[in-house]
Parts: sequence; C-alpha cells; structure tokens
Amino acid sequence: VSAHTASTPTTPTGHDHRPETLAKPDLSSATPQQIRQAYREQRYSGDTWGLAPEYLQVATVVVPAEVALDFFTFCQRNSPSCPVLEVLDRGSSRVKTLAPDADITTDLGKYRVFRNGDCIDEPPHIDGLWSDDLVTFLIGCTASFEPHLVSAGIDLPYVAEGKTTPVYVTDRQANEAGVFRGPLAVSMRQVAPEMISRVVQITSRYPAFHGAPVHVGDPGVLGIADLEQPYSGDPPRLDVNKVPVFWACSVTPQLAAMASATPFMMSNAPNFMFLADTLTTDLAVFA
Amino acid sequence: VSAHTASTPTTPTGHDHRPETLAKPDLSSATPQQIRQAYREQRYSGDTWGLAPEYLQVATVVVPAEVALDFFTFCQRNSPSCPVLEVLDRGSSRVKTLAPDADITTDLGKYRVFRNGDCIDEPPHIDGLWSDDLVTFLIGCTASFEPHLVSAGIDLPYVAEGKTTPVYVTDRQANEAGVFRGPLAVSMRQVAPEMISRVVQITSRYPAFHGAPVHVGDPGVLGIADLEQPYSGDPPRLDVNKVPVFWACSVTPQLAAMASATPFMMSNAPNFMFLADTLTTDLAVFA
Repeated sequence: VSAHTASTPTTPTGHDHRPETLAKPDLSSATPQQIRQAYREQRYSGDTWGLAPEYLQVATVVVPAEVALDFFTFCQRNSPSCPVLEVLDRGSSRVKTLAPDADITTDLGKYRVFRNGDCIDEPPHIDGLWSDDLVTFLIGCTASFEPHLVSAGIDLPYVAEGKTTPVYVTDRQANEAGVFRGPLAVSMRQVAPEMISRVVQITSRYPAFHGAPVHVGDPGVLGIADLEQPYSGDPPRLDVNKVPVFWACSVTPQLAAMASATPFMMSNAPNFMFLADTLTTDLAVFA
Repeated sequence: VSAHTASTPTTPTGHDHRPETLAKPDLSSATPQQIRQAYREQRYSGDTWGLAPEYLQVATVVVPAEVALDFFTFCQRNSPSCPVLEVLDRGSSRVKTLAPDADITTDLGKYRVFRNGDCIDEPPHIDGLWSDDLVTFLIGCTASFEPHLVSAGIDLPYVAEGKTTPVYVTDRQANEAGVFRGPLAVSMRQVAPEMISRVVQITSRYPAFHGAPVHVGDPGVLGIADLEQPYSGDPPRLDVNKVPVFWACSVTPQLAAMASATPFMMSNAPNFMFLADTLTTDLAVFA
C-alpha cells in the first residue's frame, strides 16, 4: 500500500553542495564535451536546460545489479516514459555509444541518491558512491526535443527566459515490474491551439525521447490539481490562450525509487541531464 | 574466436515432430486467439506468414534468468534488430500485454531449442522444458509490417503465393553485451525503384517492428554472396527490375545463441511467430 503513496514525493534531506557560482550563459555555445568537462571539474553548477540544443540530453538511473533486470523491465513496460537509449556494462561507469569515454559518475552537474525510498542527498558527483555491482541506464528526455519545437516557431516563452519545463506527478500508476512500481510523471508545455498539430508531428519523430504527447488539455484528467505547483521545474505562467500539452517523462524512475522504497538508486537531479555527443536528429524515426 | 564464426549457422539436429497436416488457408481468416488455440491443440502445423494480417506477429526468445540482463542489454544495443515489446516475469510463461493469458510455451507452432550454441530440436511445444528461472522476451518482427506494404500496393508476389520472406546472415557483427555476440540478420524484399520511397515511409512508422530499411541495393555490401540462398525463408525469385531492400531482423538473437555458445536458449522457429492480440497500427509512431 505504501508503494502507492508516492504522489507526495519526499524532499531531499541533503543540501546543495555548491553555490550557483557560474551563470548559464557561460556555456551557452559549449559542446557537450565541454559541458561534461565543466561539470567534472565543478566549474559549472547550473542545469542543462537549453544547453547544446542540437545534442541529446538523457536521464541517468543507477541501480544495483540484483534489481537491474527488474528496472530494465520496468522501463520496457513503461516505454513512453522510460525509453532506454543505452545500458552500461555491470560495474562500468563509462558510456560507450552516446558519448564515448564519458564517466557517468562525474560528468553530470547534480545527482540524487535514494535509500529506502528517500532522496537523501543531491551530490555534485557520485564517484565516491560507486561500486562494481551497479548498472547504469541512460533514458531519453524531452529536453532533447524542446529545441526542435522552438526552431519550428512554437512559442515557449519560458525557454528564452532560461526557465525549465514543469514536471508533474499524475494519478496514473506505471506498469509494475519486480520490485518497481509508482506513479507516472509528465512534463507540460502550453501550446497555442493552432500549433498543436505541428507539435504532435514534430515530437512523433522522436520516440527515443518520449515521442508524441500523451494528453492534450484538462490537467484534471491526469489527476493534476494545480499546474502552478509542479513537482520539479519552474512553475509555469499560465496563459489562457494556450492549451496544456503533456508528455511522458523520465522523472518516472525517480518516483519509482520512492514509491518502491528501493534500498538504493542514484539518478540525475531533475533538469541536470547527461549531455551526449549524439545529435538529436540522428534518433528521428523519420526526417 | 569461435564466437564469431556463426555466419555458417548450424542446422537443427532434431526433426519436425509432426506432418504438415492442415493447409494454411484453413486459418486464413482466423483471429490471433483462434490461431494460438489451433497451435496449442496441435491442429495446425503451418507457419504464421500471412495469417491475421492486421495483428502483431512477434519473435519469442527464452533465456535463463542468470543471462537475462545480458540478453536484454544485447537487445537494447541492437535495437533495430531486437525491439523488445514485452518481457514476462521470471518463471512466467503467461503473456500479459500483447495477448492476455496466452501461454508462450504452447501457443506457437514450432520452437527451436539451443544448447551450447547448437540448435538441437524444433519441438511443437516447449512446456515440457519450462522452469521457474526462465525469462521470456517478445520481439518485433517484419511480418507485422508486410501487410501494410501489400495494402499500399507494393508488389510482393511471394506473399500471394504463400511463401515466406527470405532472411540472410550478414558480415556485420551485432554490438556485444555480456555473454552475447554474433552476426546481424536481415530480411529482404525486392521493391520496384519507384516504390522505394513509399516503402521507407510506411516502415518508418513502425520502429516497434524494425522500422525503416537498413540497406537498399547491393547485397554484397552486407556480405551476402547469393540472394537465392537465404538462411531461412523461401529463396526469392530474383527480379532484375527491382532493388533488394533490407531490414534488421529478429532472427539475430538465434544467431547470437549459436555464436555465443549459449548454454540454453529457446526461441520460435523462423516464420513461426507468436500472434498477439494487438493491432499493428496501434504501434505506429505516427498515423
């Protein structure tokens, strides 16, 4: 029963380990490699939203090998939310395909550490927590298609303001797998009614990062009571002339860590994605 | 080294357990449920090519739990060849999503049993070989998009003749994962030059069953010496006015079983797919 109460997510009891010293514009024209290096050397502490817009941004989930098959199956059974783009060998923190030689323990800006369902810390690196029995999953994220919406002329004012996309916990339960269960998360963008078709067409090209919207319109249908109170991301400025459009979201595994009281899981912190060397357009299922 | 010699696949040393008693037309208008029932009761021994054309046909791979994470990772690393559409719980032979309550051990027409890399038998059922530590993967197959090609007016004469699509072993190696390695398989259809674009468009809609072609034209580029000698399926009647078009193929895991000398694996026999209750159009990424 407690496994289904995660719609009130816990707040991390750790604290941010570093001040926000460097502004985002500093890396606005950086390559994914430069951004990973900046994180590795702790020269940048901002999130990745809007950075290296041509490149893939992915969510990162690390679990012990003994539950890795369960987690992988959870992702498959909820593939719109958790499209797995790469799985690292057991014990390896080295990415092979999406960014050769990147280290998953140091090359992100902020992580989350879950123990027994609680987010207990948000450290800048996780190399000190690494062990040989950990398996890493890299999962698609809508940060990868947002630049395609902007360049197609979809009006998303918060992007230019440097704000992040709001994410909500729905009242829909994910399909269970082994020890993993929990609610589904969604991201939301407000879209002008005449542009909804275009938004569906553009995002349909990218099932690797959640594909077409899962819902258009009334947030109440997903059990979302107040759009101005997202689970993560910046609260949106509501626009009565636009329609809320919702996509499956890779925050879902973090909700599963909490709902399932997973003994141990690590992930990226929301909006602190792993920046890959792969162009987003390389993953389009049609041009 | 021996792991890479599977491009000369072994021939099953077992034999077909039943005569071909019932003709294919008998089930030409049957539902997936009726076809599964006929296989379960051993009232039909033909393959599934062309049956229930609106419904998903999937490949089936069963491995011991101790290598299930490796196999799942192999599929992810070769996702054009091995798109995983469902994973059953450890020890369960019951399908949940694609065909509720179907039994994966009795509801196909012919299986393959691999031991130490050899295909040692092709039994009609595998319930007698079942154990609690087996994990089943259901994988997309191009049988699911062939009816869409036919109904779009693509001329594939062998379909009307009741023949099966030829499958070839390429000289390309799959990406390795844990104990699994081996060559990539492809299926081939001859397409009139003016219809190649349409064929690419139609199959791009269906990444769940291999998506767009991986190669158009010269079979030698894939290391295929003779199109008239396929690994499985019927030898094609070559048409000089058409171009061979190749798709990634779900026979790849069977080649991996042989190349990797996997201690134990079971699969469907080629062209004897699992018939799901899911409409193929439900898996289109765009309409």
